[in-house]
Amino acid sequence: METVENQAVEKELARQLEIIKRGAAEIVPENELIQKIRKSITNNKPLHIKLGLDPTAPDIHLGHTVVLQKLRQFQDLGHNITIILGDYTGRIGDPTGKSETRKQLTEEEVLANARTYEEQIFKILDKEKTKVVFNSQWLAPMTFADVIKLAAKYTVARMLERDDFAKRFKNELPISVHEFFYPLMQGYDSVALEADVELGGTDQKFNLLMGRHLQKEYGQESQVAFMMPILEGLDGVQKMSKSLGNYIGINESPREMYGKTMSIADELMIRYFELVTPVSNEEINRLKTGLQDGTIHPRDLKMRLAREIVTFYHDQEAAIRAEEEFKNIFQKKELPDEIPEYLLDNRELEEGQIWLPKLLALAGLVSSTSEGRRLIQQGAVKVGDEKITDPGTNFIPLDGTIIKAGKRKFAKIIVK
Amino acid sequence: METVENQAVEKELARQLEIIKRGAAEIVPENELIQKIRKSITNNKPLHIKLGLDPTAPDIHLGHTVVLQKLRQFQDLGHNITIILGDYTGRIGDPTGKSETRKQLTEEEVLANARTYEEQIFKILDKEKTKVVFNSQWLAPMTFADVIKLAAKYTVARMLERDDFAKRFKNELPISVHEFFYPLMQGYDSVALEADVELGGTDQKFNLLMGRHLQKEYGQESQVAFMMPILEGLDGVQKMSKSLGNYIGINESPREMYGKTMSIADELMIRYFELVTPVSNEEINRLKTGLQDGTIHPRDLKMRLAREIVTFYHDQEAAIRAEEEFKNIFQKKELPDEIPEYLLDNRELEEGQIWLPKLLALAGLVSSTSEGRRLIQQGAVKVGDEKITDPGTNFIPLDGTIIKAGKRKFAKIIVK
Repeated sequence: METVENQAVEKELARQLEIIKRGAAEIVPENELIQKIRKSITNNKPLHIKLGLDPTAPDIHLGHTVVLQKLRQFQDLGHNITIILGDYTGRIGDPTGKSETRKQLTEEEVLANARTYEEQIFKILDKEKTKVVFNSQWLAPMTFADVIKLAAKYTVARMLERDDFAKRFKNELPISVHEFFYPLMQGYDSVALEADVELGGTDQKFNLLMGRHLQKEYGQESQVAFMMPILEGLDGVQKMSKSLGNYIGINESPREMYGKTMSIADELMIRYFELVTPVSNEEINRLKTGLQDGTIHPRDLKMRLAREIVTFYHDQEAAIRAEEEFKNIFQKKELPDEIPEYLLDNRELEEGQIWLPKLLALAGLVSSTSEGRRLIQQGAVKVGDEKITDPGTNFIPLDGTIIKAGKRKFAKIIVK
Repeated sequence: METVENQAVEKELARQLEIIKRGAAEIVPENELIQKIRKSITNNKPLHIKLGLDPTAPDIHLGHTVVLQKLRQFQDLGHNITIILGDYTGRIGDPTGKSETRKQLTEEEVLANARTYEEQIFKILDKEKTKVVFNSQWLAPMTFADVIKLAAKYTVARMLERDDFAKRFKNELPISVHEFFYPLMQGYDSVALEADVELGGTDQKFNLLMGRHLQKEYGQESQVAFMMPILEGLDGVQKMSKSLGNYIGINESPREMYGKTMSIADELMIRYFELVTPVSNEEINRLKTGLQDGTIHPRDLKMRLAREIVTFYHDQEAAIRAEEEFKNIFQKKELPDEIPEYLLDNRELEEGQIWLPKLLALAGLVSSTSEGRRLIQQGAVKVGDEKITDPGTNFIPLDGTIIKAGKRKFAKIIVK
């Protein structure tokens, strides 16, 4: 009897591990994770999975969703998810990867960002099954003495071993004493939650291990540090980030999302499937095999990926429409279904003409005349069917002319 | 009219400066001190003088009194003295000059030490004119956010420039993060008090300058860092400290105080007059001149110093008695007036004898038989008139025998 039960436990453990380990970059230590899951199955008691979000950058892109998708998987396996919105931590700003002291956010800014964050994460997580807490709940009531007690649990030298601190210290760039509190606070969050597992990107390793350390110091069982990789952006080289412009925002339109996904390198496709879509392991394996034996064309696979992403953040209908449009523009070289119109005011004309870069800017196809000039010089601007390459070109307005700038931007010129 | 007033101010300023600057090691910056005093005289508004005491070592010795005597001088000149008992800081322990992280005291230990401290400082300061506050008054109500705000005002690199931190960091000895809060808290005390001047030993320079820095950061006029030298102990080389045993405690008996003072090096006499006695500058100058032109014998000067110290901590009568006794023992080689008796119990005897080191220990002349053996070997023990040098000696009890151990310890043996 016992053996049969054990076998059932081990089978369920294997099932969970296959899902949980998909795409993971590092699990410290993996054997503790296995023990915790086994115990959770045996006692029918879900694990406490923690993710801390630093509400300083309110726009979530696919890069952020890598850990959120993993959380969703834990959630679907029946584990308890707690999102800690670091409203208190946000006052410091995570110095991770930063080369200088960050501006401290005001309480209002942090709260506003936190609310925006909350709206977005429920595009991935099941709202009903997700607990969201602010870490001010336990950090705000801490006295100076409590802070001292916390700070006594770590040494300056070990703190300075952290990559970004080490670099700044070596290069004599200032590190304010309060920045040491970011990892201490984040670590203490794990104590407050009694977390079993904390998720984060590989760049969060130091902070996640701090949680392990502090839980032990406060007499608890240490959490497992579960690290997901950092997602490469559209360029396939640098990490996806808003400031680098190589991102797909989860609030973007189906058309933008689809088009941007189609621009990623072929080598990234499977990685994106694994990290940012809910497609099952079995299906991903089938796709991999198809790609290897040539039965699936890379372009078709990328279109599947783009459909999956649009379907996830919008719906299937929107995905199909975006795909149709994409095919029209890029594959059939046709125009999209809807082209925004630009009503050209006569007063913009000089001697009945308008400088083309100026028209591009007025029509919203570029953000400035200098960007317009650059696009023209790069051969990326068409007036009707004619490619224009001289940035000095003047346009004689003709009602209904379609102007194309770059790969996906169009405007129909309407003349009064 | 204005000129006459100005002259009066400058005259009073010169008078105060002469007293205040006596014995000072460093005043940072001196010109600000001069301005503050001048303003205080002009506006008839006393300065706020701050001294922080760390209530971790409850026994005060002459080394501690150097800053207290200076405070007394400020007090006699009409300035306001505030003693901050660092009950809150004491939980960390000042890492100044320490080569390792100190044990954190409990609240009870800190409070008990603080009370003992308070009793002792009023042997030097005028109780009526001294404000004593605990820094928990403003530190305890601080929230985590307040602590973060405070910690943001200093960098890790500058913190690590502090001598003791720098040494420990270089030698890879652990510095706990919470230790950075000692200087920050002490500095913040100056903000809370709006101190004009903070006193401390030269080893407190970093902490005193932190006060200057933080006051500026919190929008206040910066205090002057006023440093007194570290008093050399009886050996004339190392700083006076309880653990080195080279100290004169202010709770010691007149005899101990007098005798210990007589054991200091001649070179230290004037320094002791300046730093630990209330003898006026004029009188000290007279004594210096006398010493130089040979009209005052160094031994007489040292006896004067010893009398001053005993008079200050006990009274003149006690000083005179201690001097008489000292003269009897060391100058006339006679016995002191009062010799403690030790009632020897027969049960301590073996075959009618007692091992001399054991007797010395029982009579309280030494703290252990091994110390007794050492003293005997050094030729520092007399039984009656006979110097004993064999540590194996057994004593045959004879009622009324006087035993001498070291220079100043006697016991009369009483046999039942």
